[in-house]
Amino acid sequence: MRMVDVIHNKRNGQALTNEEIEFFVKGYTKGDIPDYQASALMMAIYFQGMNPRETAVLTKAMVDSGETIDLSGIQGHKVDKHSTGGVGDKITFIVGPLVASAGVPVAKMSGRGLGHTGGTLDKLEAIDGLQIEMSKEKFINNVNKHKLAVAGQTGNLAPADKKLYALRDVTATVEAIPLIAGSIMSKKLASGADSIVLDVKTGSGAFMKTLEDSEALAKEMVAIGNNLGRKTVAIISDMNQPLGFEVGNANEIKEAVDILQGAKVDDLRELSLEIASHMTVLAGAFSDYDEARITLEANLDNGQAFEAFRQFIIAQGGDVSMIDDKTKLPQAKFHVDVTADEEGFVAEIDAESIGTAAMYLGAGRATKEDEINHAVGITLKKKIGDTVQKGDVLVTLHADSESPENSIKKVKQAYRFSSEHVDRPTLIHKVIRD
Amino acid sequence: MRMVDVIHNKRNGQALTNEEIEFFVKGYTKGDIPDYQASALMMAIYFQGMNPRETAVLTKAMVDSGETIDLSGIQGHKVDKHSTGGVGDKITFIVGPLVASAGVPVAKMSGRGLGHTGGTLDKLEAIDGLQIEMSKEKFINNVNKHKLAVAGQTGNLAPADKKLYALRDVTATVEAIPLIAGSIMSKKLASGADSIVLDVKTGSGAFMKTLEDSEALAKEMVAIGNNLGRKTVAIISDMNQPLGFEVGNANEIKEAVDILQGAKVDDLRELSLEIASHMTVLAGAFSDYDEARITLEANLDNGQAFEAFRQFIIAQGGDVSMIDDKTKLPQAKFHVDVTADEEGFVAEIDAESIGTAAMYLGAGRATKEDEINHAVGITLKKKIGDTVQKGDVLVTLHADSESPENSIKKVKQAYRFSSEHVDRPTLIHKVIRD
Repeated sequence: MRMVDVIHNKRNGQALTNEEIEFFVKGYTKGDIPDYQASALMMAIYFQGMNPRETAVLTKAMVDSGETIDLSGIQGHKVDKHSTGGVGDKITFIVGPLVASAGVPVAKMSGRGLGHTGGTLDKLEAIDGLQIEMSKEKFINNVNKHKLAVAGQTGNLAPADKKLYALRDVTATVEAIPLIAGSIMSKKLASGADSIVLDVKTGSGAFMKTLEDSEALAKEMVAIGNNLGRKTVAIISDMNQPLGFEVGNANEIKEAVDILQGAKVDDLRELSLEIASHMTVLAGAFSDYDEARITLEANLDNGQAFEAFRQFIIAQGGDVSMIDDKTKLPQAKFHVDVTADEEGFVAEIDAESIGTAAMYLGAGRATKEDEINHAVGITLKKKIGDTVQKGDVLVTLHADSESPENSIKKVKQAYRFSSEHVDRPTLIHKVIRD
Repeated sequence: MRMVDVIHNKRNGQALTNEEIEFFVKGYTKGDIPDYQASALMMAIYFQGMNPRETAVLTKAMVDSGETIDLSGIQGHKVDKHSTGGVGDKITFIVGPLVASAGVPVAKMSGRGLGHTGGTLDKLEAIDGLQIEMSKEKFINNVNKHKLAVAGQTGNLAPADKKLYALRDVTATVEAIPLIAGSIMSKKLASGADSIVLDVKTGSGAFMKTLEDSEALAKEMVAIGNNLGRKTVAIISDMNQPLGFEVGNANEIKEAVDILQGAKVDDLRELSLEIASHMTVLAGAFSDYDEARITLEANLDNGQAFEAFRQFIIAQGGDVSMIDDKTKLPQAKFHVDVTADEEGFVAEIDAESIGTAAMYLGAGRATKEDEINHAVGITLKKKIGDTVQKGDVLVTLHADSESPENSIKKVKQAYRFSSEHVDRPTLIHKVIRD
């Protein structure tokens, strides 16, 4: 088999055979196939697409290119959850304990990465003493005992994806839906869960700006999961503004704890219940969505979900008093209000600009070497649909300096007002099963 | 400027700016832009195309990446001729002397290359003593004196094209019309002619199989030439069967000499007159096509074109007695007739198969190291439209062995017969000026 023929076939719109896809992934991982042929193939796939079989075979080949995590030591049906990324997304801290409170094991492997705020691990480290490095044995024991553990991702998972993603990034071939789907799913599948719930964001603050693209990505990922023997459900949720009211690290943990204690922050509570319901149904803990939903709502209101979070923190060495008394979480030195220059209805809050404002405060990393400041962040006071009078506080910045001008400017750019009534955006656009 | 943005813009269907194209060609030639970004751009161009401005700027940038040949020492308007390649194409040996016989200078730089038969230089070397290596001064003096010289291509012409073509060859991005047009034209433009006549082949034996593709390529090349200040005309000529009756090296020289001596081999004489007429009109030797045509036909019939060929051979040290007495040209040891197994009308002669049969005999090179055997080749006895009885000779193989089985098999595969009358193919499909 010659790589040039594989490229040629895809360029001409043919579906590649399983052998051709495996030949490419194996050869590229080993270094036998050069970058210049891989990038030409990626561009051909950008234009010609891949059918569900091709995408599944590509994903499987990328999984097989490296290690896979063996979670067979965990009792019960293990469900994972993945979000395509948004601003203010602290859903994992709610859904993890909530699903655990229903007796379903959650073995969460997370990363740090670059972004507007820290990743899951960074946010958790706002809690003093909390350890995310642990042996595989301890990780599995913790899940068996507390139904929840969160650890840093170890092992050489899907190295073919890692190499290919770096190449796509510099050859303008990232935005191909089968390749995005394969990339995400290869890492999820290598992580060993039995079922997967995907939270695919859509809107101005999401990687996928349109519902159409988000739905296409969701369908591809669900097809891959189901094709490769993992029950997979995708929820398409709104990211036309940040999720909840807090954007940062410690303040996001605080808001998650509020929800775990029964607070009725509409979008956060709703999306968490939606995701957790699908997760627990996939795990077989409930016979249907409605039954799951009733129990899980109760577990938020009766303290059981919060208790699951407490046990998890204690098990991983964290100072649980910081969530029992949330004022003990890291606090910024200054609180700076950003006020409205005009009146009207909030029509848009550009989530990326809010995220950038948070990063300017020190909440995220621009380069791998940057340190996260857990105390800083942003509290939104007005969301889409709210009425605003001139001088009303739009957001409060939790800052380490008295006048964080760059962040103030970014926040002001993020808000757009309308003189007419604006509806709140729909939170959950669609649920995709297969 | 970042290369990833250039790729992104083209991928999204934007026309690239002049600066973007020049940035790419310069950076790629210098090695600052890696192959994997160049191949991604090539594939994006394959799908999104380039407009005439982009194609001209790309071509100019490739010309500027290396040396250009200065032909200013030659008196008069210099016209070059280029064929996109076919089987049995000995037109250069006819057109060169024919145009020279009208007083128009032809300074031909040619290559060897790989192929079914030798290139222009290899074929000429069937004549003993003929030198194609000479100083620039001698080359220019010969053109000034005899209006015709043929030399091996020297100098580092369009190195960007050379590097890019090698990359396209292994990334399935050869078949993009703007890239093919730019590649051919960059070498032609670097070779210094004032005007160019292009012979774009179409049909089963051509690189471009359909008239539509051939026309698109011809239009692109004419647009590039005219955009960059060279008068350019393209003729689209048929390559659904080999041109003329001879395929090889010495036997192609013999057939060219026949035409120069007034022989009426329909397709060869006609296409030569067509190309030479356009060349001489572009050079300003005649006021219009009809006037050129009348004089050039006369020069074939009155011996002036043949005499121009003789003078050229003498000037380059060749043994002119070999064309005065063509039996002195290299002769193969064996003549093997391939006969028809069925009766009917010749419907198809696959030119590529005939070419391959000639290569098997030793007429061409499969690798750079192969030696050309000037004596071997193929004489067609039947062409499309001819009637054939069972046992009639289809071709005579000039071979160095008594039973060249591979070649016989290939020839038999090349011929297809019909029980119904078949028209001879149209020779000249179109003339494209701008």
